[in-house]
Amino acid sequence: MTPIDHAARIGRVADEVAGGVLLVTDLTDLRWLTGFDTSNGWAVVRSGELIVGTDGRYGDKAIAETAGTGARVIVEQDRARLQQQRDELSVGATNDGLIRRLRRVKDAAEIERIEEAARIADAALGEVEPMLAGASELDVRAELEYRMVGLGADDRSYPTIVASGPDHAARPHHGASRRTIQEGDTVIVDVGALVDGYHSDMTRSWVIGLATEQQRDVYELVVKSQQAGLDAVAASATSRDVDAACRNVFDQGGMLDWYLHATGHGVGLDIHEQPFHNQASEAELLAGMVVTVEPGLYRGGFGGFRIEDLVLVTDAGHRVLTHSPKRELN
Amino acid sequence: MTPIDHAARIGRVADEVAGGVLLVTDLTDLRWLTGFDTSNGWAVVRSGELIVGTDGRYGDKAIAETAGTGARVIVEQDRARLQQQRDELSVGATNDGLIRRLRRVKDAAEIERIEEAARIADAALGEVEPMLAGASELDVRAELEYRMVGLGADDRSYPTIVASGPDHAARPHHGASRRTIQEGDTVIVDVGALVDGYHSDMTRSWVIGLATEQQRDVYELVVKSQQAGLDAVAASATSRDVDAACRNVFDQGGMLDWYLHATGHGVGLDIHEQPFHNQASEAELLAGMVVTVEPGLYRGGFGGFRIEDLVLVTDAGHRVLTHSPKRELN
Repeated sequence: MTPIDHAARIGRVADEVAGGVLLVTDLTDLRWLTGFDTSNGWAVVRSGELIVGTDGRYGDKAIAETAGTGARVIVEQDRARLQQQRDELSVGATNDGLIRRLRRVKDAAEIERIEEAARIADAALGEVEPMLAGASELDVRAELEYRMVGLGADDRSYPTIVASGPDHAARPHHGASRRTIQEGDTVIVDVGALVDGYHSDMTRSWVIGLATEQQRDVYELVVKSQQAGLDAVAASATSRDVDAACRNVFDQGGMLDWYLHATGHGVGLDIHEQPFHNQASEAELLAGMVVTVEPGLYRGGFGGFRIEDLVLVTDAGHRVLTHSPKRELN
Repeated sequence: MTPIDHAARIGRVADEVAGGVLLVTDLTDLRWLTGFDTSNGWAVVRSGELIVGTDGRYGDKAIAETAGTGARVIVEQDRARLQQQRDELSVGATNDGLIRRLRRVKDAAEIERIEEAARIADAALGEVEPMLAGASELDVRAELEYRMVGLGADDRSYPTIVASGPDHAARPHHGASRRTIQEGDTVIVDVGALVDGYHSDMTRSWVIGLATEQQRDVYELVVKSQQAGLDAVAASATSRDVDAACRNVFDQGGMLDWYLHATGHGVGLDIHEQPFHNQASEAELLAGMVVTVEPGLYRGGFGGFRIEDLVLVTDAGHRVLTHSPKRELN
């Protein structure tokens, strides 16, 4: 894979900070800027210089991972002295969300990783889809997560959701249980892979066996809503436009009260990051953002469906990174 | 498994709160008290009554999971109104860490779950141990996590650590990578299972092939230190005693500067909870606590070893819940 060019990011941030001081304490921001992946550390950018601080547990990791960035690494065994160093170096620092803002637009090396993560999740789902009927939700999750590592992932992107039947599939945030997936069930699988710190995220839904007319109607409305959301993704639109496109289809279908969550979010080093697609969001979509579009309908006693693709925002519109088929119901 | 008796816990907490008001906002505390497992919710105990609040996503889950506790469940679709309800109901509330304190001592149903989680991790490690040589760290992690679910776990307890060779095994907090485990490597595997919300936690270490004299000396010192730590665990001791017992063995062996972390922690609904064994801790060990004892030695260029057991504190001393053998090196 193309290496991530941390030196370029640091140069760009140093230019933006100019004569000021920037303190980076968010660990994902720290990783994005410097390449240093840790549970305790910070960075200060001042006078065109980058200083990274951490404790003794992560000293050699900090040095290895920031090699080639020109960073000065401070390793303090004593936590109080580490804090003191940080306080002294960051006098007058602003924390204006600069890094978080820059992280929204992905560069080519980042898109490569996210696309690879999406490819792995697609491949794993393709292998596991034929096993759904008769398996437990947890079995399906274990198979997906095991296969994703075999296919090249570093880990799951998040705990895989496998929600089946009238109760579990009716809960957008159900995890996975020992429940056996049965004939007549609606089933939702929400799965992603992790590649070099970058996440993928997608959801597919099914009915086991022959669908009822109601199941078919609800499923087709979700497919239509999701397509409308995709069609709204472009570099000139806002997050609210995407949300509204999905919501309008549900409203016209008379099913808006079955829609229980927001329509999507940015994906990168965090599984949920800016922008967030909801009714109140004025966030503008920018070319290079990677976002989800994931409407769904849920009702206790019925179950539910959600369909989610990961897409890259482009000047011309978008490019879909998820390739798992959205199957017609039997 | 024996059901968790949430009604008994609620009764006990109501007695302690008496005429006061208790607001529970920590989600693990909420689950311990009520059985409601959520990403958004709270509870108020006042006048012997339990009130649980959550948003629309979790309404039916809250009702299902608190059935039989006598709780009043408030479901607000509007987040601002949910907050307002909470503020009104919790006027005059104290938050004195009561639940966190009560959580330290496990009841029989909790010990059953933790012991089952430990058994599953033992069994998975027994199956995977013969595969170490020639596998990648990530392969080993994937095999362990897949097998734990097959053996009855709901999930891994935490991302399994598989750290091998002169660099990775020298880092106490290494995760798992594509590195292939090779002849001559020190290897550390830190793995646990999750059963009904309860965690297990253990670590074993090896040398692949024939150990060098230095590897043998360091390993034997870790085994000796860990045994000294176990011997110090009893209902009359403190967390500091356990830490000191391990540390003294390293000090006498002239290797204290290879010891980079604290000696252990409580385990329950959280993987890390009270008490924490370190040099400063005055926490008293109480019968019914479940804690780890996990000394290790680490050095860049050498690698490292850590051995960790999960133990139940008893009046008579302790009972070890981890049964994976601590093998002699070849």
